[in-house]
Amino acid sequence: MDERNISQAVIRRLPRYYRYLGELLAHDIERISSSDLSKKMRVTASQIRQDLNNFGGFGQQGYGYNVKHLHAEIGKILGLNVAHNYVIIGAGKLGQALANYASFERSGFLLKGIFDVNPELEGVEIRGVKVQMMSKLLDFINNNEIELAVLTIPKERAAEVAELLADTKLKGIWNFAHTDLHLPERIIVENVHLSESLMQLSYKVARRYEDETGESR
Amino acid sequence: MDERNISQAVIRRLPRYYRYLGELLAHDIERISSSDLSKKMRVTASQIRQDLNNFGGFGQQGYGYNVKHLHAEIGKILGLNVAHNYVIIGAGKLGQALANYASFERSGFLLKGIFDVNPELEGVEIRGVKVQMMSKLLDFINNNEIELAVLTIPKERAAEVAELLADTKLKGIWNFAHTDLHLPERIIVENVHLSESLMQLSYKVARRYEDETGESR
Repeated sequence: MDERNISQAVIRRLPRYYRYLGELLAHDIERISSSDLSKKMRVTASQIRQDLNNFGGFGQQGYGYNVKHLHAEIGKILGLNVAHNYVIIGAGKLGQALANYASFERSGFLLKGIFDVNPELEGVEIRGVKVQMMSKLLDFINNNEIELAVLTIPKERAAEVAELLADTKLKGIWNFAHTDLHLPERIIVENVHLSESLMQLSYKVARRYEDETGESR
Repeated sequence: MDERNISQAVIRRLPRYYRYLGELLAHDIERISSSDLSKKMRVTASQIRQDLNNFGGFGQQGYGYNVKHLHAEIGKILGLNVAHNYVIIGAGKLGQALANYASFERSGFLLKGIFDVNPELEGVEIRGVKVQMMSKLLDFINNNEIELAVLTIPKERAAEVAELLADTKLKGIWNFAHTDLHLPERIIVENVHLSESLMQLSYKVARRYEDETGESR
């Protein structure tokens, strides 16, 4: 299977397929036709066939998709067939919320450590993982095969933490700090800039208002 | 100014321009050339000129962009020139984290209410806003000109809450519940499915591993 030429748009849609297929699996459904999947996911059956054909021959005419097989194959493409150890840097409300997401663990993301600068948080347990001080971070990453770090710190501190992380063997950073990080190319950064998503919503609401009233506000 | 034909890709980039221009403003910088902005934002100057030309005539050859004007115009396009009242539904860790984001308020998003089903949270204050019980939600939305709702509830409860909200005058929902909501077309839904973003990161890490080793894991 060569998925090198799959478009970014398809890749962005894969987690949604993965989610729906996971729900079917949880309901012991073994096969589904593209038209039934289409009704559930509210996308066209032809889009589904086109997307899934990228991975070659999962579907059989008149027989439907093998849910378990397709779920596993998409999981493999998304890198979910192996476990990923990760740490959370920043044990504030957002860091704690993410630490509590049991669904990450089910997808193979294993929380190994939580770090903060606030001494009052030292030793506090979140889902069985104790908050440690930042001075322990580098050794911990290097000695525990940590692959990913989740950054839930204020943007003011993000640059200095990024500089620290640049010297580790981390493979990726999931960045919630609302600033752009500058890291060596071997460390992949995926940004979740929440206020940008909120602005997309307000853009769409503003546009809808214009469409309805013919005037801007 | 007619921004109707601006591509979705440009719209998605606008919040980032808005953020950089806001930082320049905060440093009292009045003008910036596309090449200086290019260095800061690490995108090409020609991309910047192309993007910003969509809004017509903000830049002047050899003179640069008027930071304040451009910031205000992009803000208008994003609907940030008017205040948006919003409520948070779900006062767990994630809901509390979002309630604490002061930067939303600076962009004109005003937190008016927080709601939960857990009676232990009733009356708890988060940034001066008291948690109320869900039974008060509909009246509150209808009587307080609430435009947006942020959904930070478990996916198992999302469908029933969406059904409640379908009867309100809400204009938009910022949905963190990891499921697809079905709402009347007049209510715009912007999804933030965090685990899908995490899977994009793990996809990129897996792909990088393949590129480096020539094998999949």
